[in-house]
Amino acid sequence: MRDGEVTRRRFLQSVGVSGGAGALFATMGALGLAPARAATPKFCPPHPSDFRLTGRAARKIVILGGGIAGLTAAYELGKAGYDCTVLEARDIAGGRNLTVRGGTAETDLDGHTQRASFSPGTYFNAGPARIAQWMVTLDYCRELGVPIQPFVNANADALIYNEGDGAPVRMRTAKADLYGYVSELLAKATDQGALDGRLTAEDRERLLSFLEDFGDIGPAHEYTGSSRRGFTAYPGAGENTGTPLPGPPSLSDVFASDVGRYLSFEFGYDQAMMMFQPVGGMDRIVTALTAAAGRQRVRLGARVLNVTGRASDVTVTYRQDGRDHAITADFCIATLPPHLMAKVPHNLGATVTAALAGFFPFAAGKIGLEYRNRWWENDLRIYGGATQTDLDIAQVWYPSHDFHARRGLLVGYYHFGPAAETYGALIPAERTARAVAQGVKIHGEKYRSELDSAFSVAWQRTPHLEAAWAYPPWDDSTGFRLLLQPAGRVYFAGDWLSQAVAWQHGAFLSARAAVTALHQRVLTS
Amino acid sequence: MRDGEVTRRRFLQSVGVSGGAGALFATMGALGLAPARAATPKFCPPHPSDFRLTGRAARKIVILGGGIAGLTAAYELGKAGYDCTVLEARDIAGGRNLTVRGGTAETDLDGHTQRASFSPGTYFNAGPARIAQWMVTLDYCRELGVPIQPFVNANADALIYNEGDGAPVRMRTAKADLYGYVSELLAKATDQGALDGRLTAEDRERLLSFLEDFGDIGPAHEYTGSSRRGFTAYPGAGENTGTPLPGPPSLSDVFASDVGRYLSFEFGYDQAMMMFQPVGGMDRIVTALTAAAGRQRVRLGARVLNVTGRASDVTVTYRQDGRDHAITADFCIATLPPHLMAKVPHNLGATVTAALAGFFPFAAGKIGLEYRNRWWENDLRIYGGATQTDLDIAQVWYPSHDFHARRGLLVGYYHFGPAAETYGALIPAERTARAVAQGVKIHGEKYRSELDSAFSVAWQRTPHLEAAWAYPPWDDSTGFRLLLQPAGRVYFAGDWLSQAVAWQHGAFLSARAAVTALHQRVLTS
Repeated sequence: MRDGEVTRRRFLQSVGVSGGAGALFATMGALGLAPARAATPKFCPPHPSDFRLTGRAARKIVILGGGIAGLTAAYELGKAGYDCTVLEARDIAGGRNLTVRGGTAETDLDGHTQRASFSPGTYFNAGPARIAQWMVTLDYCRELGVPIQPFVNANADALIYNEGDGAPVRMRTAKADLYGYVSELLAKATDQGALDGRLTAEDRERLLSFLEDFGDIGPAHEYTGSSRRGFTAYPGAGENTGTPLPGPPSLSDVFASDVGRYLSFEFGYDQAMMMFQPVGGMDRIVTALTAAAGRQRVRLGARVLNVTGRASDVTVTYRQDGRDHAITADFCIATLPPHLMAKVPHNLGATVTAALAGFFPFAAGKIGLEYRNRWWENDLRIYGGATQTDLDIAQVWYPSHDFHARRGLLVGYYHFGPAAETYGALIPAERTARAVAQGVKIHGEKYRSELDSAFSVAWQRTPHLEAAWAYPPWDDSTGFRLLLQPAGRVYFAGDWLSQAVAWQHGAFLSARAAVTALHQRVLTS
Repeated sequence: MRDGEVTRRRFLQSVGVSGGAGALFATMGALGLAPARAATPKFCPPHPSDFRLTGRAARKIVILGGGIAGLTAAYELGKAGYDCTVLEARDIAGGRNLTVRGGTAETDLDGHTQRASFSPGTYFNAGPARIAQWMVTLDYCRELGVPIQPFVNANADALIYNEGDGAPVRMRTAKADLYGYVSELLAKATDQGALDGRLTAEDRERLLSFLEDFGDIGPAHEYTGSSRRGFTAYPGAGENTGTPLPGPPSLSDVFASDVGRYLSFEFGYDQAMMMFQPVGGMDRIVTALTAAAGRQRVRLGARVLNVTGRASDVTVTYRQDGRDHAITADFCIATLPPHLMAKVPHNLGATVTAALAGFFPFAAGKIGLEYRNRWWENDLRIYGGATQTDLDIAQVWYPSHDFHARRGLLVGYYHFGPAAETYGALIPAERTARAVAQGVKIHGEKYRSELDSAFSVAWQRTPHLEAAWAYPPWDDSTGFRLLLQPAGRVYFAGDWLSQAVAWQHGAFLSARAAVTALHQRVLTS
């Protein structure tokens, strides 16, 4: 396995990038750290008996940042009786796990305030939105009693739209044509003996049998279309065998249209279906985690001013309600974004600051568009999933829940890097106008006329976050490794200190690692 | 498009068959009818004003069979005020749309009675279970207010189990290996110039670029594995990049294992994700349809004895509660399974009887296995979807709903033809024992030890149905065509008179066609 190459590519795809990798040069190779593989023991949460049986006392912990990593640390340590306090600069907990509902207000770094006017029941997961089956996020949903439902991350009836190609094509059609021609070419090459050096007679026979089925090319080994492409009118009653879609295009046209670059997204280890979402909004996790950690432990609007570590404790000063406060604890877990933590005055040393500052904050944006009717279901028969485009909106997501409801919310863009910077530099109304104009190209005028309201996030312009996520430096793992160790009594945690940057999963895992290390230290000291 | 070939193969796959087509010789070519394509006008349901505006009166209709076709006919005709009576021989409406819950009792033709002891909330869709996005079934769900949720018809983390191969492999792993080797072979053939006669230089470049991504083979055009295969331990916190799965196997081993034959199932026009199910059980459609048609119009336990058509009306005699009754109506719509309708005495002519008797009843069986815990989610991280096997159980379905609930119900087999006949010939307890013994091969002893209770259906042994579905004769469309026309005042309808045999969708469409023809006749007579 070419780990570097494979993983790096997947890493970029993992953030939802499909094709157009040009946007991502800045972040390429975030996994070029080529870290050594370390076996991770199963996580054992701290437990009350850990202290009762050892005669030790639970300690006081101050946690910087009330995102998923911070809340998880408070929750897990709280299981053993640690006295945790979480300082969160924003007015709500959860960090990038932000679900926008009617009434949600956000003011960005440029002073633009948006207040969502979504209908009751409508929500927009502005941050994380999907959870793979194997991710620890699902374990927390189970443990915390947060119901889950499928998130549609791939849908054969969603569209591919490349501006130069004209009309959009359904994913199933592109897939049938690509697999058909690939199978035809390989079958013909095999028939002609081109692979005789590589294949035994048995291999050859099995390969051909596979290709006939895989590409639907029949015994003649020619792709001339397939019912898999879909129909203009599907087979019906009586003798109505349906109206096939026009096509297929020629082999040259299929490859020239570049629809193929959207296909591998759904193979990714972190993106392959099935995927899931909490019922009612991603922030159900935040709500449950906060309740489980203890609502009174989370101080909102509390901005960290200074961290001073000493041999025996840590003092954190912070500003809340216009007043400065200080809290002294046995340990600190710092989960602020690294580029922001780097700016917090502290006495942990210049190498820590440099390591934090070495991370690359990355831009991403998302817009929620509420429509008065679900035309994508009623007219287009698209029930969830994403349309992939080469436009600057990158993709359009159809909702994975409340199917057949009267209204619905699309994600009108989810994009990264330069496109996100461009949209983020616009005032919110201009973002909406631009996103809608792009969507009209795919979906026609109803994309504008049926729109009710919009809400957009530009994470890089969001106070106290200032990035969608942050990558470690690609060419030097020294800083990354430094921050995996405590700086005295200060531990670091966040998705940025995991192999799942930009995933909640990474924040959960990193918090668990910090909790494990800290608890082990307390138990053995 | 090789319609005959493509559609026939899809037709077989549409019933959930994957590989092992040997089981299906008897039914091959059901679409060999090669029917002419007929344009279908949009369905316009009968409307009260159709009569008010024409001065005509709504007529009396007797409908034989209270399955989806019969109920739909009653519902649609009822919209215009037709006086419909539905005669259903079974004790519940819905026909094969049967959802088994705790307390459901069924006695088969062999006299074996099963009474389900499933827990509250647990259900088993013994008949139809999945709905494609484009199917009219979803329109009825919308119109009737039946909430829907995703049905997981493909899951990268579900398994493939071929008995000869030993351990099961996840679908994602098989897919990565197959796509990897296919891409490698085609890229190498292309590199060697084997396809120069077929491809322009531009085609070649685009093809190679596609293959590098599609197969994850890198610029060296060699498949040596991929993160897409999945991990023994997924990438984690800090520098833990995870533990890759062992492998990949050699090209020869991958093709020899024949995992490839399970792949194309998810490309089918009727099986590709997304697919859906009603929340709470497929029979929610039956309940809603019955309520909308008028519960009092559906006579249960009413077995048809005779149909006598005349120039001006139709008389149907039936037995209910041990007594014989007669009903005379203006028209009749006969939706009984064709092989059973063929045995009902009537005066419609010998050609009608022959046409009905010409259909081929087909066997299929399903078993619901309720487990005390959801080990497939908790231990295997499989959230919905199906494991495909070459065992006589064919497949194991994991539930698509109530994720993370305490209990759950698997479909322990869904199989056809000879396998269904074999299991159907066993008494229910023996079916369970045999199915569980097969499942243990894949999932280990917990497949037996965690089992709570079971309920199986053998449709071919179910009274008043006596088949899972019925195919028209493959070599002569005369009878099929005859039944598309009314026999005097008797119309025929059912999935067996559609291009979607074995799908509720076909029953809905066929009923609509009969309703349209009948209503048109009434309006113009």
